[in-house]
Amino acid sequence: MTGIMSPDGTKRLVLVSGRAHPELAASVAQELGTDLLPTSAYDFANGEIYVRFGESVRGADVYVLQSHTAPINQWIMEQLIMVDALRRASAKTITAVLPFYGYARQDKKHKGREPISARLIADMFATAGADRMMSVDLHTAQLQGFFNGPVDHLWAMPLLTDYVRSRVDLPNVTVVSPDAGRIKVAEKWAAKLGGNPLAFVHKTRDITRPNQSVANRVVGDVAGRTCVLVDDLIDTGGTIAEAVRVCLESGAKDVIVAATHGVLSDPAARRLSECGAREVIVTDTLPITADKRFDQLTVLSIAPLIARAIEEVFADGSVTSLFDGNA
Amino acid sequence: MTGIMSPDGTKRLVLVSGRAHPELAASVAQELGTDLLPTSAYDFANGEIYVRFGESVRGADVYVLQSHTAPINQWIMEQLIMVDALRRASAKTITAVLPFYGYARQDKKHKGREPISARLIADMFATAGADRMMSVDLHTAQLQGFFNGPVDHLWAMPLLTDYVRSRVDLPNVTVVSPDAGRIKVAEKWAAKLGGNPLAFVHKTRDITRPNQSVANRVVGDVAGRTCVLVDDLIDTGGTIAEAVRVCLESGAKDVIVAATHGVLSDPAARRLSECGAREVIVTDTLPITADKRFDQLTVLSIAPLIARAIEEVFADGSVTSLFDGNA
Amino acid sequence: MTGIMSPDGTKRLVLVSGRAHPELAASVAQELGTDLLPTSAYDFANGEIYVRFGESVRGADVYVLQSHTAPINQWIMEQLIMVDALRRASAKTITAVLPFYGYARQDKKHKGREPISARLIADMFATAGADRMMSVDLHTAQLQGFFNGPVDHLWAMPLLTDYVRSRVDLPNVTVVSPDAGRIKVAEKWAAKLGGNPLAFVHKTRDITRPNQSVANRVVGDVAGRTCVLVDDLIDTGGTIAEAVRVCLESGAKDVIVAATHGVLSDPAARRLSECGAREVIVTDTLPITADKRFDQLTVLSIAPLIARAIEEVFADGSVTSLFDGNA
Amino acid sequence: MTGIMSPDGTKRLVLVSGRAHPELAASVAQELGTDLLPTSAYDFANGEIYVRFGESVRGADVYVLQSHTAPINQWIMEQLIMVDALRRASAKTITAVLPFYGYARQDKKHKGREPISARLIADMFATAGADRMMSVDLHTAQLQGFFNGPVDHLWAMPLLTDYVRSRVDLPNVTVVSPDAGRIKVAEKWAAKLGGNPLAFVHKTRDITRPNQSVANRVVGDVAGRTCVLVDDLIDTGGTIAEAVRVCLESGAKDVIVAATHGVLSDPAARRLSECGAREVIVTDTLPITADKRFDQLTVLSIAPLIARAIEEVFADGSVTSLFDGNA
Amino acid sequence: MTGIMSPDGTKRLVLVSGRAHPELAASVAQELGTDLLPTSAYDFANGEIYVRFGESVRGADVYVLQSHTAPINQWIMEQLIMVDALRRASAKTITAVLPFYGYARQDKKHKGREPISARLIADMFATAGADRMMSVDLHTAQLQGFFNGPVDHLWAMPLLTDYVRSRVDLPNVTVVSPDAGRIKVAEKWAAKLGGNPLAFVHKTRDITRPNQSVANRVVGDVAGRTCVLVDDLIDTGGTIAEAVRVCLESGAKDVIVAATHGVLSDPAARRLSECGAREVIVTDTLPITADKRFDQLTVLSIAPLIARAIEEVFADGSVTSLFDGNA
Amino acid sequence: MTGIMSPDGTKRLVLVSGRAHPELAASVAQELGTDLLPTSAYDFANGEIYVRFGESVRGADVYVLQSHTAPINQWIMEQLIMVDALRRASAKTITAVLPFYGYARQDKKHKGREPISARLIADMFATAGADRMMSVDLHTAQLQGFFNGPVDHLWAMPLLTDYVRSRVDLPNVTVVSPDAGRIKVAEKWAAKLGGNPLAFVHKTRDITRPNQSVANRVVGDVAGRTCVLVDDLIDTGGTIAEAVRVCLESGAKDVIVAATHGVLSDPAARRLSECGAREVIVTDTLPITADKRFDQLTVLSIAPLIARAIEEVFADGSVTSLFDGNA
Repeated sequence: MTGIMSPDGTKRLVLVSGRAHPELAASVAQELGTDLLPTSAYDFANGEIYVRFGESVRGADVYVLQSHTAPINQWIMEQLIMVDALRRASAKTITAVLPFYGYARQDKKHKGREPISARLIADMFATAGADRMMSVDLHTAQLQGFFNGPVDHLWAMPLLTDYVRSRVDLPNVTVVSPDAGRIKVAEKWAAKLGGNPLAFVHKTRDITRPNQSVANRVVGDVAGRTCVLVDDLIDTGGTIAEAVRVCLESGAKDVIVAATHGVLSDPAARRLSECGAREVIVTDTLPITADKRFDQLTVLSIAPLIARAIEEVFADGSVTSLFDGNA
Repeated sequence: MTGIMSPDGTKRLVLVSGRAHPELAASVAQELGTDLLPTSAYDFANGEIYVRFGESVRGADVYVLQSHTAPINQWIMEQLIMVDALRRASAKTITAVLPFYGYARQDKKHKGREPISARLIADMFATAGADRMMSVDLHTAQLQGFFNGPVDHLWAMPLLTDYVRSRVDLPNVTVVSPDAGRIKVAEKWAAKLGGNPLAFVHKTRDITRPNQSVANRVVGDVAGRTCVLVDDLIDTGGTIAEAVRVCLESGAKDVIVAATHGVLSDPAARRLSECGAREVIVTDTLPITADKRFDQLTVLSIAPLIARAIEEVFADGSVTSLFDGNA
Repeated sequence: MTGIMSPDGTKRLVLVSGRAHPELAASVAQELGTDLLPTSAYDFANGEIYVRFGESVRGADVYVLQSHTAPINQWIMEQLIMVDALRRASAKTITAVLPFYGYARQDKKHKGREPISARLIADMFATAGADRMMSVDLHTAQLQGFFNGPVDHLWAMPLLTDYVRSRVDLPNVTVVSPDAGRIKVAEKWAAKLGGNPLAFVHKTRDITRPNQSVANRVVGDVAGRTCVLVDDLIDTGGTIAEAVRVCLESGAKDVIVAATHGVLSDPAARRLSECGAREVIVTDTLPITADKRFDQLTVLSIAPLIARAIEEVFADGSVTSLFDGNA
Repeated sequence: MTGIMSPDGTKRLVLVSGRAHPELAASVAQELGTDLLPTSAYDFANGEIYVRFGESVRGADVYVLQSHTAPINQWIMEQLIMVDALRRASAKTITAVLPFYGYARQDKKHKGREPISARLIADMFATAGADRMMSVDLHTAQLQGFFNGPVDHLWAMPLLTDYVRSRVDLPNVTVVSPDAGRIKVAEKWAAKLGGNPLAFVHKTRDITRPNQSVANRVVGDVAGRTCVLVDDLIDTGGTIAEAVRVCLESGAKDVIVAATHGVLSDPAARRLSECGAREVIVTDTLPITADKRFDQLTVLSIAPLIARAIEEVFADGSVTSLFDGNA
Repeated sequence: MTGIMSPDGTKRLVLVSGRAHPELAASVAQELGTDLLPTSAYDFANGEIYVRFGESVRGADVYVLQSHTAPINQWIMEQLIMVDALRRASAKTITAVLPFYGYARQDKKHKGREPISARLIADMFATAGADRMMSVDLHTAQLQGFFNGPVDHLWAMPLLTDYVRSRVDLPNVTVVSPDAGRIKVAEKWAAKLGGNPLAFVHKTRDITRPNQSVANRVVGDVAGRTCVLVDDLIDTGGTIAEAVRVCLESGAKDVIVAATHGVLSDPAARRLSECGAREVIVTDTLPITADKRFDQLTVLSIAPLIARAIEEVFADGSVTSLFDGNA
Repeated sequence: MTGIMSPDGTKRLVLVSGRAHPELAASVAQELGTDLLPTSAYDFANGEIYVRFGESVRGADVYVLQSHTAPINQWIMEQLIMVDALRRASAKTITAVLPFYGYARQDKKHKGREPISARLIADMFATAGADRMMSVDLHTAQLQGFFNGPVDHLWAMPLLTDYVRSRVDLPNVTVVSPDAGRIKVAEKWAAKLGGNPLAFVHKTRDITRPNQSVANRVVGDVAGRTCVLVDDLIDTGGTIAEAVRVCLESGAKDVIVAATHGVLSDPAARRLSECGAREVIVTDTLPITADKRFDQLTVLSIAPLIARAIEEVFADGSVTSLFDGNA
């Protein structure tokens, strides 16, 4: 029977994956030392998804992994259908693992008559039967409150900062946020790296040159320094590429970009490869297909972190302990 | 302000449409004598859907129309997101109008460890905030019980039988079900047409010729008669085309096919055009794009029926009355 | 302490029964090798039911068995009250076992302004605190979707077909559905027996004799053959007795009737004993009291199947495996 | 269209009744000046109830009246099924009117492993779709808290006290509770009548006569006085008849019994007619069939009170005002 | 890791306490033989409460103890916030332990437009994530029905009666209720002590002295006897002190007061110390601070009872067994 | 009857207020042109709150206003209890108006084992029966997603910016955020004022002076300019006072502080009056009692904004329109 039994034989861990990102699922399974549950999943002619599990999951603690990459609505629906099937098949607990949480950016109404799709996603997982959610670097931490069961919120930052540390002269680093809204993330990076200076890019007037029009400028000191531009995700790369350009124009020595989620929608690969950044670092919470890759791109594996978190949850250990008590 | 006010000025009917089937939405709006609510809906680069309504819907009775055609998961999600936005925008009541109810065929577990996706769809609409559902010819009537609010179940059969009546010599008609599972629908047709004979196609042995292998055969009399092959939907057309063939082999004079929902997934158009049927009749609950059309295809408009049902619901009238008290 | 402990001592199986069908409860308990939980249940003078369990059920996996026989509303209410008491007494899980699911035939609206009582039943069990349901041969498989927890749907067909096989000359059998709506069940029987021919009874005109009025006729070949008339239940026996008559009139050699649920409301016993059937076979999902019995009736015991299913559920095994992976 | 329109034509009141107590339903309808909604309700052969409404209730405020008399589980189920049908038929609001609330006495656990059936009843009405409940003289007022919507709790006491006042010499009256648990009701009666003395019957030792065994005694002064024995309901009449006897033995001049609900299960009629009470007064919240009647019985009509309360609810008036601001 | 493991190592009992009554929490922990879970809890400047647990509770059975003493709303909110934090921290089960259930007296609507706050409290605990509640001597037993999970209702009566028995000449005792509404409690006391006489205090006219105004009087015999005045709680002591006075005026030899919950709001201490009672006995379900104490006051510890109940719940034993099968 | 009827007489607006901030309630009522609903609200001796409304609210659209000021838990509970009473009194809709949303800052888990109290607050209002919430300047906009009904999120910014505009030389203004996390608010201010420069205060090393310890510094240009320091709320004033000091040290000409919510917990008044700010501007979403006032404080009235929003909601108008389509 596929899965991992607890030492006392009273619990069984089962890992299930949708079709969105099979490489990640395979890596997590390997890290855990088990196989994925045999699963049939395919599309009917009109696009309806069919799912069936090949073995009993009765009484098991099941972790259902799916990356919310394009075609994103299809993969979300597949994960919901898998959760429904698990519930009806008598799984004891169901944890929806969303390395990247789709629709996370639609977490509030910017204007009237908009949806709050990120809340709807959480509610739909609860409706389908998920007991718990696990995700990496939520766009805003408030998303935790959109789900009323436990949410294991994993941080990729230690993974990213460890790598960046090996690539820069740390005292000469300024951490830069690509816009005002993400500066909180940059502040955490600065603290983690050791109290580095902070800057951000902002559309403003140059107060020293009257009558000049509004433009993007860096607020903070970057001249002669290595800029580490940080964000939670890179989608089409427009904001990031512009921020790299502004940093370099402001005299930055060089620029490294680091983000957890490499959405990398077209034309991100082109923009980022041409923007002048020395290196662009992401994790593989989303599949980085060939068309998304470019020379300066470095992809770190998120699988060990997810696997360790699943182990802690299964063993009634502490996910917080993975982050030195900070998560 | 877009929409229709009730005569006493205390209620407002608003029609909203997703992007799946704009022609049908336009027709329903025209039948109602109103415009569709101005709506922005588009995809972000990574496929996430964005929706915003252009006018206030506060206090309105809103009908949200979406055809569940391919890419079906995208259109279902769009409709759910629209319902969420309407709820947060203080619509008084929200009716999800699904001319074709996606995943309706996944209404039970055929085997262990399968989902019941049709129930999940109903639950997700309830979770998003829908108060009521309206649909045409559900795959099985039990789907009504998957939603715990009112479900207005419309019948296209009168529309189809009226048309068929004009194309055949009624006393010479046998109603045929393409398989055993759909014979209940055929029985309703037979009753509606006036008590015509019934037949169905079944995989069986020919009891008069021993040692012969199993094959599809017609159970019932079709020789020299006009067969009206009926079903609720035609997807890839395989079952239907085979049934036409078997009827003709069994001596049928000619065959007419009638179904409510023209899913017509590839290669339905080729199969149906070549199967020997005199005419294939569907409604436009789903968009019938150019690649789905063929010479023998007739498409009837479902818009008048949907519009009349919406009027009855809005006016606290009787949807049952549209069907002579039978729905 | 009454019940069965799991081998590792961490779980306890408890079987509880209402008053509707004590013989079946006793048989299931015997098959499981345990006693029924001591339970007080009686009616107050005005008909209100009182229930109390004689032992602690704290932390136990409890299976509450009740047959929905007449007076059916009383027995449903008793089972609901038992579930409520178990929840308040801290049972760990509660499985409502309904060998026959009352109100299953009211699973859709045939006309406007009707209830969907079968859904209401499922909702009431959920409201009272049932975590799971177990039932035998649901009237329609869609009922599984009326309950949002696991539903263990047991099939009596193997039990019935094994018996029938021993009573007939298999190659000479035609499987007959008493009406068009149940032909799907007949088709499963035909497949299970080995690909036998299929027929059904239908109210139609005889197309070979014009001007004749509408009557019940067999569609399909039965002359000289043994008809096995199958249905999920036999209530007053009217439809079945008429079908037997029509088969014999059509030249059938003889007729055997098989159904899972012997509701056998008056005057079923008289009708069935006089209709000409060679044998009528049912299981004891419902109590077959003396007034319901007649010479040709054979009653098979469903207790072993229910007991094995409970064992699989309790041991986190596979109920599907009981049916060769088909349920 | 059956029912009552509000003066501004925007609301419609509809009264529906189950089959338990047609006389009361007719009286309430007459008081309201409308007809009952045409309704089909009957039992299938196996006892399952079928219900269908003969007219549209779309958008109406519907009041569903059912007396919870024997066979009580059948009538409760019928009322639940009616509520379900109304919800699915798009009634705007549904008020379950329970003149007598079945299972009200099972409102707590007296011992471990008992149900709290009165809460279950409330939950089932909510589950079926009731928005509001209306009832008369709940066994304990805490039952209001078992339902999370509005509960209109009507008091029959003014009706009863007005009648009793006309039958007694008020200054000579002592109000007596048949046991300690109901003395709160007696206290309200005493206050309402004008501050009369109170007494209750209690099983105790006579402290003036040592060594004597325990027996029922009156605590309080009744000698030479008219005792008005009050309770919320009379079931088999045992407690009441014994209390009458004890009052008379203690020197009471005569005894009148008054209670809201005349359950009057056998052998109440015999017991009460022989117990020595001058008069026994109840209302018709429950049907008082011929076998329950006896010479000393007086039945007051509750219909005017229920009708007035429905009118206040429908007109957004005040039910509290019916009771001088005290309800 | 703080807490108690079950003998088979599969379960962990954790005791958590709010800040309302640390002495009781410490006593319960000591009785259980464990430490309280390290917990940070403090108020922000504007009064918002902050809570964090110092150790993992993943997979644990957690008991959250809080006494609802003044400032009562703060302590209720703190307990709710603790429950929320436990749920999000993946506790397996959460039991809210409320030695005194705040707002228990607001368990019904006395008049229109009042809340039923006791139900709201139960609903809020369910909403926050509590699976079960435990409380001592609920104001009315119906409160059990306000929560839809298991409610462990503990009785302090055995503790109190054992103590009282040691302080009185039992045959000479009359049990007295301070008003009509609490006589049910007094009746239980009388039965428990051995069938003692009962009396209650009631505002009435003296029927032997006409024209006299209404006043509090004892109904029942107390002259020359030891009165044990019993209630579930003593708040400001007004009713109790008045009842003591009336008993003494009616010739009682002496009066002992016993109640489970010592709310003892000002000026209870002064009133009770001056009222003439020989002794006033309460438990420490609520903290009895110095300002609430007076010479005649005796405080019994409730901790052993709560600890034993927690042990039974944790071990899937029987709480009912703690009360000789009566709870 | 207190309240405002709609022009067509079919709806009634009722305004109810808790006891936290009667001045604001009076102002809102005056702006609306109605009286507050007569309401009794007081504390029992042990701190439990009692509430009763003096008039019927049946069928009314009720707005329940409460400011979450200290003692904050008491006022939150009072508002919840009021909502419960309104629901049970048959209000048609209930809108909880929270000018300041208590616990809004606890909107995520900063560390493991913390609550998300802001979500709990939203859930408790839903549980008590609120259909809708209205609030001013939520701490984070994601809070809208914590409630699943409509949330009317009002912006005080136009009120504040209009006032500030009249107090400064606009071209010379830099908008300053007191820390990185609030810079998004500052960015909105800068845009609203006309594209002004932005700065923020950050704890960092001065990169131009090596070896110097970490301290608060301004990132961005403020020398010689008027700083407008903006935040959503001022609690104890520590962060703000420090930011004012840093701005002045960095050469700012002067500093104006503007915030929506004047929590002003002790020692805010002292700190702010001594910090060097020219003016501190807040609204009266919270009561600004005498002990919180100081010379430089300006309090703007939020009542007109709340009143206009209520009017729009009641009239099915558009709250978005109050903010030029931006809310």
